[in-house]
Amino acid sequence: PPGPPVPLRPVYEGPMPTPPQRAFQPGSTPAHLTHRFMMWNSVGIVRGYNDEPENAIDVEFHDSAVHHGMHLSNALGHKMADISQEAVLLACPSTDELCSKLVCVHFSSWDTHKEWVVDLPRGEDARALCLGRSFVAVATSALLLRLFTIGGLQREVFSLSGNVVCVSAHGEQLCVVYHRGTGFDGDQALGVQLLSLSQKRRLILDQPLPLSPQSTLSWIGFTAEGTPCSVDSEGQVRPLLEDQGAQGQSRRHFNLISCLFCRCIPCKGSRFPPTLPRPAVAVLPFKMPLCQTSTEKGQMEEQFWRSVLLHNHFGFLSSNGYEIDEEAQSQSLKEQQELLMKMFALSCKLDREFRCVELAQMMTQNVVTLAIKYASRSGKMGLAQRLSEIALEKAQEEHQEEEE
Amino acid sequence: PPGPPVPLRPVYEGPMPTPPQRAFQPGSTPAHLTHRFMMWNSVGIVRGYNDEPENAIDVEFHDSAVHHGMHLSNALGHKMADISQEAVLLACPSTDELCSKLVCVHFSSWDTHKEWVVDLPRGEDARALCLGRSFVAVATSALLLRLFTIGGLQREVFSLSGNVVCVSAHGEQLCVVYHRGTGFDGDQALGVQLLSLSQKRRLILDQPLPLSPQSTLSWIGFTAEGTPCSVDSEGQVRPLLEDQGAQGQSRRHFNLISCLFCRCIPCKGSRFPPTLPRPAVAVLPFKMPLCQTSTEKGQMEEQFWRSVLLHNHFGFLSSNGYEIDEEAQSQSLKEQQELLMKMFALSCKLDREFRCVELAQMMTQNVVTLAIKYASRSGKMGLAQRLSEIALEKAQEEHQEEEE
Amino acid sequence: PPGPPVPLRPVYEGPMPTPPQRAFQPGSTPAHLTHRFMMWNSVGIVRGYNDEPENAIDVEFHDSAVHHGMHLSNALGHKMADISQEAVLLACPSTDELCSKLVCVHFSSWDTHKEWVVDLPRGEDARALCLGRSFVAVATSALLLRLFTIGGLQREVFSLSGNVVCVSAHGEQLCVVYHRGTGFDGDQALGVQLLSLSQKRRLILDQPLPLSPQSTLSWIGFTAEGTPCSVDSEGQVRPLLEDQGAQGQSRRHFNLISCLFCRCIPCKGSRFPPTLPRPAVAVLPFKMPLCQTSTEKGQMEEQFWRSVLLHNHFGFLSSNGYEIDEEAQSQSLKEQQELLMKMFALSCKLDREFRCVELAQMMTQNVVTLAIKYASRSGKMGLAQRLSEIALEKAQEEHQEEEE
Repeated sequence: PPGPPVPLRPVYEGPMPTPPQRAFQPGSTPAHLTHRFMMWNSVGIVRGYNDEPENAIDVEFHDSAVHHGMHLSNALGHKMADISQEAVLLACPSTDELCSKLVCVHFSSWDTHKEWVVDLPRGEDARALCLGRSFVAVATSALLLRLFTIGGLQREVFSLSGNVVCVSAHGEQLCVVYHRGTGFDGDQALGVQLLSLSQKRRLILDQPLPLSPQSTLSWIGFTAEGTPCSVDSEGQVRPLLEDQGAQGQSRRHFNLISCLFCRCIPCKGSRFPPTLPRPAVAVLPFKMPLCQTSTEKGQMEEQFWRSVLLHNHFGFLSSNGYEIDEEAQSQSLKEQQELLMKMFALSCKLDREFRCVELAQMMTQNVVTLAIKYASRSGKMGLAQRLSEIALEKAQEEHQEEEE
Repeated sequence: PPGPPVPLRPVYEGPMPTPPQRAFQPGSTPAHLTHRFMMWNSVGIVRGYNDEPENAIDVEFHDSAVHHGMHLSNALGHKMADISQEAVLLACPSTDELCSKLVCVHFSSWDTHKEWVVDLPRGEDARALCLGRSFVAVATSALLLRLFTIGGLQREVFSLSGNVVCVSAHGEQLCVVYHRGTGFDGDQALGVQLLSLSQKRRLILDQPLPLSPQSTLSWIGFTAEGTPCSVDSEGQVRPLLEDQGAQGQSRRHFNLISCLFCRCIPCKGSRFPPTLPRPAVAVLPFKMPLCQTSTEKGQMEEQFWRSVLLHNHFGFLSSNGYEIDEEAQSQSLKEQQELLMKMFALSCKLDREFRCVELAQMMTQNVVTLAIKYASRSGKMGLAQRLSEIALEKAQEEHQEEEE
Repeated sequence: PPGPPVPLRPVYEGPMPTPPQRAFQPGSTPAHLTHRFMMWNSVGIVRGYNDEPENAIDVEFHDSAVHHGMHLSNALGHKMADISQEAVLLACPSTDELCSKLVCVHFSSWDTHKEWVVDLPRGEDARALCLGRSFVAVATSALLLRLFTIGGLQREVFSLSGNVVCVSAHGEQLCVVYHRGTGFDGDQALGVQLLSLSQKRRLILDQPLPLSPQSTLSWIGFTAEGTPCSVDSEGQVRPLLEDQGAQGQSRRHFNLISCLFCRCIPCKGSRFPPTLPRPAVAVLPFKMPLCQTSTEKGQMEEQFWRSVLLHNHFGFLSSNGYEIDEEAQSQSLKEQQELLMKMFALSCKLDREFRCVELAQMMTQNVVTLAIKYASRSGKMGLAQRLSEIALEKAQEEHQEEEE
């Protein structure tokens, strides 16, 4: 016989909340794999082997001068790892009997104790962790971020605004990605904090993290130069840059760019690379998502703006006290001017004179002079006249700047 | 026979997410209308006619000296438009065969090419667009905001934190409204960014956009003076002003005010005006939502605070480099003092002496002197004494300010 | 016969939105109780008695020198109250016939009118209210925050970004907690604004409010010194402090700390205390949520960081123009150095020399000198050598600071 009639209650029909993505270690493969990368970063590789009866961890350094490889038994069942020039950090979840534990193999210590262990309070689990220069950061299920010195002193503890997604560190910078809300219809709603931990903790940036539609965060970390970058599941790379605001104030803003060469591991036929044989690392060029990049104009625009962003990025690092490659910087400025001149020539050929003037406004005074010559030789006297006025304005501006 | 018994699974009963409002062009009527306004702004009107077999667009300028009207065929099926002193901008959605396209009729160009076309990348659709001074902004389904020069060069592309609702520009200001989250139980969760695009892009403001409960955004734009304003579906007008924060820092904050006269089109018996005959424009006074505005006290309070806000608004524009009407400003200061004196007289009559003192604290020294006379003549000697002390304090303050 | 077959429509299975917690007055017991505390704060107690046929309010001051107790009839059905040194504030919800009303018994007024009443506009209900120094704040169902002078003048009205949870004031500070979104799976998504209302309103802070997982806000208010603090339903106390950011900019950030002694009312066997007999007030010590506080190391770390936070808190108040207890401040600095020395001694005994150096880096130069002696006496000459280098660096730093 049929069951009792079901009352006609309202059925949910609005936008659907997206299940929040789980916390993960950037540079790891999933925890359910029996052989997995617990961490692959610029310092080394931590592999986990969960073979019955052995459960072990292999640590390997890209530069064996940093430290020799290590083989550790994994009786505690560590699931998370990070590796730096100073230490290897591991954490295991809590069990019915045991607390969640943090183990730091501080191999660069000059004293006789190379390891320390901390139990998290009962009921609190490590969810994400990383090693910075002389600090250890652990985000937990209690919505706390716990900081330790690399020697194992408790340094600070502060509240997170939402469940952690991942953490990453570079030098004294700490990047924390968290769920700032619940996304809908396939989107996540993530936020990102960038903190500086030199001496006193300070918040550099706290912003929504941009992702491609319906994507999740795949990686967060820093370029070799120290710029935080994210990669989403659509493969979109986004450096987290900052904007210079009004009245000398620095206002933060995310830029969608992909001006950097990315090192990656191409996976053939599967989403995650096998641990053995050791996968080869490939370097892929990335491009900005401009329109019409199949046209000559689009290609030059893409090259130009990529170069501008690389230049901004130098400015960002320089203003944050990082040493930068001045030659590379001046090279990039030169390249930009050359690209402007090429775009000018193309617009000139197409009789797009208005656009020629727009390009000239981005040129230095010297390059405007070249543009005037080009226009004159092309018989565009009206255009040459307009460019002369721009050249004059630029000369006056430069004169004023010198005086100030 | 009845169908198989439905399992008694939990039915959703919590707060209900609100379907997010769709992207729209402020100043347009809905796209499903066969005759519609694609744009009505301070420069002109773009009408769309979707009559079989003709699909056409009519452009009309309020000031025919700007440009003569245009009649354009609409074979591409443009759905979005904007109009400025320099150009007309159109965009069509993608179809199975064609990409979403952006067409700019740059009539103010002095070269021979008055039009440029850009194809958006495959899979990406224009959702909202606007024309600023010498720039074009298009927000797309890929969560990108694309900036072009008015001449058609790609200028910049950056990520949005959520799906766009609408964009609007005034001079070098660009206003972007986006879904910062999903609202519940009839509310939207919108955010607003105000950007300045003079030379380098910089973020002026990024905040939740206040709306009346259970309302949607109906319009966003700028006053003639350049102050961004929103109107919601409840008719509430809210300028987006900024607060001056501590230690000289500028902190942004939305103010709910409606200090401005609004031009609008009254619609008789329908929600949207017909395209023909041309609707008449009406000017409606707006008021601040104060309590008890049917009483004399409430009316004077409303007038006073409306005047204060108009004055703040002058300060905002002045500090942002806009020219302001100094006479109007001093007029508004004078009006405020007169209203304070009127409120003082009313409180005095009602024997609300404490309130009299509160009012005196907002007066200039000169007006306090008038208040003292008023109190003395009313035989309120205790009050006159207290006011004398306030007058003395104000004199000392003014003296100190002069010295500094 | 069975009802018609129910169509198999999709059933909601994603994350579950949490019903948003209701607005409440911090320091009150629930409105459904017939005898309840409408407010219990540092000034006094407002009790509500909803006994048929009498509905009355009793006001009692802790210090009867402020004002004598009051017995008010409650014919209007007030549900909300606040009490300060200057006034008692009451509000009732709207009924079918009457508007929501605000009644202020301004007992400290020196004129003959000790009471004023304001009707909120029709359709708008008071949801939360508080008394500050010379102002009254009321948050309403129209997403508005209305400010009045203590004398009853309308002072300002501004939009809230979400429905109010509660408001609290201290001196010229106003704290507003609101729903910044909808939380999921048991979490709330609250935001907190701190405003300064001295002269011009300015926003000090607008941030997500941290709560323990699956908890609600139980209380918000200020310490005796004026630091805003929150308590959640897990009993976690969190002062709302601010971080000093880069380049002299002040960036706000919440710290999870519990460095303060809390006065509270222990409830035996029920969640809310009875109004009679008058409950006794207990003082409970609070601790920071550090790891391993059962060990000697953990206890000293907890004491140290608690003291550091108390010290930061002095800095916060001092920089905001509050007078601070300089002796208490220097005492707390001294205590910190003593704790560092104790931790040093413990690490020394355990041969954790690296950690000893980390501790020394937090010491003043004088205390490093003591540490060197301690290390030498313990026969740790290598450590003493490293400490000497640190002492030298510190001496140079202090020398530089003096020169600047």
